Amino acid sequence: MKSILIIVYLFLSFYEVANAQKEAEMVKAIFDEALTDQTAYENLRYLCKNCNGRISGTKQLEKAVDFTFQVMNSMNLDRVEKQPVQVPYWERGEKEIGSIQSAKFGNKSVPVTALGMSVGTGSNGLTAEVMETRSFEELKQLGKQNISGKIVFFNEPMNPRLINTFAAYGGAVGQRTQGASEAAKYGAVGVVVRSLTTSLDDFPHTGMLSYNELVPKIPAIAISTNGANLLSDWLKNDPELKFYFRTTCEIHPNAPSFNVIGEIKGSEYPDQIITIGGHLDAWDTGEGAHDDGAGCIQSIEVLRLFKKLGIQPKRTIRAVMFMDEEISQSGGKEYAQQAELKNEKHYFALEADRGGFTPRGFGISAPDERIEKFLELRSYFEPYGITQFTTGGGGADIGPLRMFGTVLSSFVPDMQRYFDYHHSPNDTFEQVNFRELQMGSAAMASLIYLVDVLDL
Amino acid sequence: MKSILIIVYLFLSFYEVANAQKEAEMVKAIFDEALTDQTAYENLRYLCKNCNGRISGTKQLEKAVDFTFQVMNSMNLDRVEKQPVQVPYWERGEKEIGSIQSAKFGNKSVPVTALGMSVGTGSNGLTAEVMETRSFEELKQLGKQNISGKIVFFNEPMNPRLINTFAAYGGAVGQRTQGASEAAKYGAVGVVVRSLTTSLDDFPHTGMLSYNELVPKIPAIAISTNGANLLSDWLKNDPELKFYFRTTCEIHPNAPSFNVIGEIKGSEYPDQIITIGGHLDAWDTGEGAHDDGAGCIQSIEVLRLFKKLGIQPKRTIRAVMFMDEEISQSGGKEYAQQAELKNEKHYFALEADRGGFTPRGFGISAPDERIEKFLELRSYFEPYGITQFTTGGGGADIGPLRMFGTVLSSFVPDMQRYFDYHHSPNDTFEQVNFRELQMGSAAMASLIYLVDVLDL
Repeated sequence: MKSILIIVYLFLSFYEVANAQKEAEMVKAIFDEALTDQTAYENLRYLCKNCNGRISGTKQLEKAVDFTFQVMNSMNLDRVEKQPVQVPYWERGEKEIGSIQSAKFGNKSVPVTALGMSVGTGSNGLTAEVMETRSFEELKQLGKQNISGKIVFFNEPMNPRLINTFAAYGGAVGQRTQGASEAAKYGAVGVVVRSLTTSLDDFPHTGMLSYNELVPKIPAIAISTNGANLLSDWLKNDPELKFYFRTTCEIHPNAPSFNVIGEIKGSEYPDQIITIGGHLDAWDTGEGAHDDGAGCIQSIEVLRLFKKLGIQPKRTIRAVMFMDEEISQSGGKEYAQQAELKNEKHYFALEADRGGFTPRGFGISAPDERIEKFLELRSYFEPYGITQFTTGGGGADIGPLRMFGTVLSSFVPDMQRYFDYHHSPNDTFEQVNFRELQMGSAAMASLIYLVDVLDL
Repeated sequence: MKSILIIVYLFLSFYEVANAQKEAEMVKAIFDEALTDQTAYENLRYLCKNCNGRISGTKQLEKAVDFTFQVMNSMNLDRVEKQPVQVPYWERGEKEIGSIQSAKFGNKSVPVTALGMSVGTGSNGLTAEVMETRSFEELKQLGKQNISGKIVFFNEPMNPRLINTFAAYGGAVGQRTQGASEAAKYGAVGVVVRSLTTSLDDFPHTGMLSYNELVPKIPAIAISTNGANLLSDWLKNDPELKFYFRTTCEIHPNAPSFNVIGEIKGSEYPDQIITIGGHLDAWDTGEGAHDDGAGCIQSIEVLRLFKKLGIQPKRTIRAVMFMDEEISQSGGKEYAQQAELKNEKHYFALEADRGGFTPRGFGISAPDERIEKFLELRSYFEPYGITQFTTGGGGADIGPLRMFGTVLSSFVPDMQRYFDYHHSPNDTFEQVNFRELQMGSAAMASLIYLVDVLDL
């Protein structure tokens, strides 16, 4: 009996080893193909150069919808769809002006950009004295007597000591999203926010703000980090200096747009869906190369790699270009809502929204037994230097799928230079490296292949 | 007795844990300081912008010698020295011209650059038919009858499937270093070599060639990858096309130069030396930012971090700007020779010559028992995503120290985009990211700190 068990055990081990070998070979084939084909890189170039400034509501974004639809439509997929979504439409208006006006040092223009969804100053602009602060706590202590009638200057830098730059971003982003309304509580007339980057340069970084409906809506801009340092320095020696800025932003009624979806039908479990996606919209001041053209094009590339290598998935694989991640995440919400209406079974979802850099790993949120299996996948990725398999995954677009119990995963590339580009005119195609982008595409495709073939 | 042993054991464990904690805290302090101080980045900017094109024999390189000497001289180190070295002096001459001349397609200029140490064509240039090849084996088969009187076009690309881009470089570099003399054996009159990069672009990448003294010296140039692809395409349809190129390179007598050395004297074992270094020379067509301004400036930054954090090393720590890595490695050889003459004991050496990218790990060559201890250091670096501790380390500059039994180590940053810049006009300061550079500086300083404090 014992010897039979040993034989069975050896046979199973042999079978498992042979299979692991087969899967490792497919992963190798995926990386080989990704690193020798320019399709994805050229698609990203087109998206960046021809659909730059594609924030919700713009013609540029509709061009991006049409482009990605056409690309996927030409790939011999089983289904390509435009899924209607209503999106906000905020318009930046004329090029913003920002300037420090100091009786002591003179006037100095500084690079500024309106924050997304901000109201404008009106065409005459806004001039006021400045109160610098680094926290809402400090703001509270300053109180109405120090703030009323002034522009509040939020100058809390991202913590450069954090190796996880997304954690540093998370620690400082509140001043951008909530700063305007927090300052308005104490009678401020406008806010200037330090750009959210650890880089010292002249690019202002925009991004979404949220107004609290209970206080007046005051105009808000971001200032470049060099500009912020200058303003802070001058304030130390001339606290009476004034800041002038002019923005002509407008909020229009919601506009129609689309999530763009392409899929390969599963051969065994066609009703089990694996979703991979990025967001197609991008801030209007740049090309949206890393945020998040890369994630979109990589998601399409996963489908191309499956087709090219003849991988017939057991489950249905969908690439989704989510709409409007930057402002209200309406695309992700609509995708989940339609899934609920159609009673779709979402087995696994992977979001790519951290730039097209060298892949470092994946994060996952799932029940414990699935997490264990997931962490074991690491061995397949080690030859490619991809070793950070950690718990905690998801993202703004696939987050709503959590209500179905879907396993949520994040693609995690190297994150040291992401915020140099994020939401700025510096987020251009030229900042994306072919090999880094395609190592990422291959990592994503390999993960999806393994999750499907190993039933993880 | 047993309980005493347990108590001793617990005490030792406690002592070890407390120490490991102390060392981990120092590593954290090193990263914190590196990520919040701009000195190294600004030093690199100066080196790139004011000492660009600093190949051996040039005034630009002597400026770099003076600059790095001054920087270290102002750091309150225990010793700063210029160590004399004789270096080759090859001069590129006038801007190179390269052009495809096809009766069928017309004439087309392509980006070319003379290979280092190549002879020139003379001022009239060189025109000849072209024989394309991808290997010396193929060249041999083509033989004299197909090659004599022609320009040989070596068009073997770096293998893009290799994740280790240095291995891909190693697999293709022979055509650049040996191609001219191999082709001359069969009567070729010149060679055109595909640039050694996996990127498809318009930058020609230069680099050293070695002539075999037994065959005629023929002129050699590199052509951009886009240019190489065009030439190859045209050749398929017009095998009689000619290639014209003109180079006016000259080799001058050797010139005097220096290794630049700064050191902190060890408190316990001052005669045991830990050397960290990069090479100060760089190809004349670019700024030498990643190759190897980064490695030099990071080596100086290690000393700055030690001083700033009050780390008093037990052993003497030296930062060495090695001279002339690119052509004849005379700096590394002279450094070792002087060490031998002075009977110096070289305990450990670390070379940084793979660019200023996100650090991924270290390689080491050492006796087995020291390797084991080295690999255990990994746990200190995991919080910083630095996990690739592998056997096999060294480099062109510290290599000669091997004769003393010195443990040799290589700093290994992410390598996906290195060859996009390597030896090309694209290797500029702008391609170096502050955080990536300084994560590297901190990794290097931490390694040296741990090697010294743990007596590894």
